Amino acid sequence: MAGKLRAAAASKDVFRRIRDVVGAKGVVPDSEAAPFLADQRGLYRGRAALIVRPASVEEVAEVVRLCAGAQVPVVPQGGNTGLVGASVPTESGGEIVVNLSRLNRIREIDALNNTLSAEAGCILADVRAAAAAAGRHFPLSMGSEGSCEIGGVLSTNAGGTEVLRYGMARDLVLGVEVVLPDGRVLDLMRRLRKDNTGYDLKQLFLGAEGTLGIVTAAVLKLFPKPVETATALVALRGLDSVPEFLARARAAANDAVTSFEYISGFGLSLVLSHMPGAENPLGRVFDHLVLIELSSADATSGLSERLERLLAAALETGIVTDAALARSEAQRAALWRLRETVPEAQTREGASIKHDVSVPVSAVPAFIEQASAAVTAALPGIRPVAFGHAGDGNIHFNLTQPEGADGAAFLARWADFNRLVHDIALAQGGSISAEHGIGRLKREEFARTAAPLEIEIMRRLKAALDPHGIMNPGKLL
Amino acid sequence: MAGKLRAAAASKDVFRRIRDVVGAKGVVPDSEAAPFLADQRGLYRGRAALIVRPASVEEVAEVVRLCAGAQVPVVPQGGNTGLVGASVPTESGGEIVVNLSRLNRIREIDALNNTLSAEAGCILADVRAAAAAAGRHFPLSMGSEGSCEIGGVLSTNAGGTEVLRYGMARDLVLGVEVVLPDGRVLDLMRRLRKDNTGYDLKQLFLGAEGTLGIVTAAVLKLFPKPVETATALVALRGLDSVPEFLARARAAANDAVTSFEYISGFGLSLVLSHMPGAENPLGRVFDHLVLIELSSADATSGLSERLERLLAAALETGIVTDAALARSEAQRAALWRLRETVPEAQTREGASIKHDVSVPVSAVPAFIEQASAAVTAALPGIRPVAFGHAGDGNIHFNLTQPEGADGAAFLARWADFNRLVHDIALAQGGSISAEHGIGRLKREEFARTAAPLEIEIMRRLKAALDPHGIMNPGKLL
Repeated sequence: MAGKLRAAAASKDVFRRIRDVVGAKGVVPDSEAAPFLADQRGLYRGRAALIVRPASVEEVAEVVRLCAGAQVPVVPQGGNTGLVGASVPTESGGEIVVNLSRLNRIREIDALNNTLSAEAGCILADVRAAAAAAGRHFPLSMGSEGSCEIGGVLSTNAGGTEVLRYGMARDLVLGVEVVLPDGRVLDLMRRLRKDNTGYDLKQLFLGAEGTLGIVTAAVLKLFPKPVETATALVALRGLDSVPEFLARARAAANDAVTSFEYISGFGLSLVLSHMPGAENPLGRVFDHLVLIELSSADATSGLSERLERLLAAALETGIVTDAALARSEAQRAALWRLRETVPEAQTREGASIKHDVSVPVSAVPAFIEQASAAVTAALPGIRPVAFGHAGDGNIHFNLTQPEGADGAAFLARWADFNRLVHDIALAQGGSISAEHGIGRLKREEFARTAAPLEIEIMRRLKAALDPHGIMNPGKLL
Repeated sequence: MAGKLRAAAASKDVFRRIRDVVGAKGVVPDSEAAPFLADQRGLYRGRAALIVRPASVEEVAEVVRLCAGAQVPVVPQGGNTGLVGASVPTESGGEIVVNLSRLNRIREIDALNNTLSAEAGCILADVRAAAAAAGRHFPLSMGSEGSCEIGGVLSTNAGGTEVLRYGMARDLVLGVEVVLPDGRVLDLMRRLRKDNTGYDLKQLFLGAEGTLGIVTAAVLKLFPKPVETATALVALRGLDSVPEFLARARAAANDAVTSFEYISGFGLSLVLSHMPGAENPLGRVFDHLVLIELSSADATSGLSERLERLLAAALETGIVTDAALARSEAQRAALWRLRETVPEAQTREGASIKHDVSVPVSAVPAFIEQASAAVTAALPGIRPVAFGHAGDGNIHFNLTQPEGADGAAFLARWADFNRLVHDIALAQGGSISAEHGIGRLKREEFARTAAPLEIEIMRRLKAALDPHGIMNPGKLL
């Protein structure tokens, strides 16, 4: 009892000292705490002993140092737009949320080196805008880019619509700055394309969901700014044509293939039914569609002609059955809206159970076929909506409830359907989380499906870097 | 004394059991041991208690398990073409060399997924040929590709001439299989473009020089096969034009810029003097030259015209002063020979002290200027030959002895000049090892120049994965 009281008093003292470090502006008052304690989808709502918003790396480091001394758990948080609950505190009430949003300085842009150094709290759209202002392109792009922050984007290794060409978040980083679980600052802010001096430490912190330290800044790769795009909605003969058409496109247009997004015919029909203004540019709703986009930094590269040639050749062989090319920026935007509003249209149709799986690109057809058959056998009338980044093998295989069924009863089977779909993806050599991460949402599924040796090695790394386990407890592992 | 005898007997027993595991064909007899105990440049010559060549992953695992039990140190070895002595045993005589050359199976090629799975002992050129036979390109390319092996290439994170476009070895890997220091097999052979399930363990083993485990196989990324190239030797107005011309080239030709190699005028003059058949395609020997190559998988992409337009525009602005385009495959090969024979020509000119540094691309001019001035101040008459992968900021800044000087006396100053040049690279935010690694050659320089916290974290990771320190002792850390 006395020990407990002493511990409580010590914690109180720590919290007072942390408040001193960040100052009045750095403490979120209880009245404004709500958005820091829940995720945007409302799946998780936690509690926190304190929510701080440090204004500098030094303040972050000092806060973590104090937390380490008192073994107070730390939850790093950015724009809090994640989809797996990794940036929300648990219900324990003993954690400190360290929100990075005030660290929002772009430290440097070096156009000749094609690098941009940004702090963790920089909003993704602002980084993209800063790159564009310097005549460069930062190719991470996703729905949440107006509010998600660089620290979170890197800590979750975000994907998005340009992965096929430019890679995931972790592929776009040359250097990081990390506050370690003991409060020391590990400065790996190198701006180098090539550096073979020991283990690549930065990769450990990217995608680690804040469990090994807090990413406070990063050196990001920039690219030539695309000045020309060519975009088409393409109907394919069958699922088998998806990887085949991708291979043809890459052979014909090389690295210019920037996006290759699959939409099932049923997904498109939901969009056409529910989304105001949505129009089908093709003659009818085909079963299998792909939104393909080429882009180039060279205005003279004749992308449209190349795309037309590609489509003409594929029409001739029969793997493409119809296609609509965007003839204007407005038409291009309309095509992208068809793809981007699939989740929203699905929500309007009823309850849905979501997946973010990946398989080898060559296994996309088999995965969609097998998973569709399995969920239909488990629940006749269920309506799978497969869509997503097929060029990367990443399918958002989301299940719409049977017509007229009870939504809540359907959602109660979420975990069952997850297991069913995940096992099919895994049997194809796939992953249960292609781009969203593990966080809290997939922690049990990860523990169920990962190889024990893999988990053991991850735990050893965690123990090596965070021996007291204060960094984002209850997430990932 | 009794303890020592017991230990010796136990070791003897271990060596006997290891011989049983690999069989007679798997043991290298003393009479054939020499090439396994020295590096190709003859900088290092070590001793080994046993040299084995296991024939399967299971045999590798069993050998390592036995070594772990007896705490016998293990030196993983591939083609043994490394430049820093990482694959050569030390002089202790107590180590086992585990040569992977017999694990040389290409396990799978999946053209639609653009992946190739190969065992560690596959020779790089064979992997490139297998990819080409499947209509694909594996873009790791370097002088030693006829004898270096995949395991070594990945364990040293090799670079080469196509890094600018495709990345280093670590960027070309989707999955690995690793025998851990306790002999268990960590199977991370996923063929996925996107997989956000926990820490990216594979990155830890890539570039680790065998200090954390033995890479026994990998899933490699393939790309569309280039069918067209356009190559030119370009004279630039000054050093400052190097990053500027690169930026123009990337803007004009996008991702098609595959190689961008700097050659100093003095480097070219050595080649013209010493290499039979070498001819200068330009009017005279300019001070600063770049070999640029574009490549495309699309035969209709008009690369030559794009390169010509780029050069014409750059000539007009004055940053390019002369250029020679390859008009045939023979001319292209001749241009590449000018670049590739620089080290050989330098050797023929006399003794040379070598560097493999990198700096931000924007800092390449400042680095070359400052380093040239510093070495000249330290030794009047010294002749710097700067060349290499300028597009990645990677300069092989090699120093030829003053004319008529004593070669041995010059080489005796190797470490002094290393420190001088490394400190200038580091001051520019650079690296002391861009692509060759640390191994034994740069271990002291690494310890001298790296941040203590960075070394500490590397040591913690090493201890977490290899608590008894049996993997490749005396290398890297």
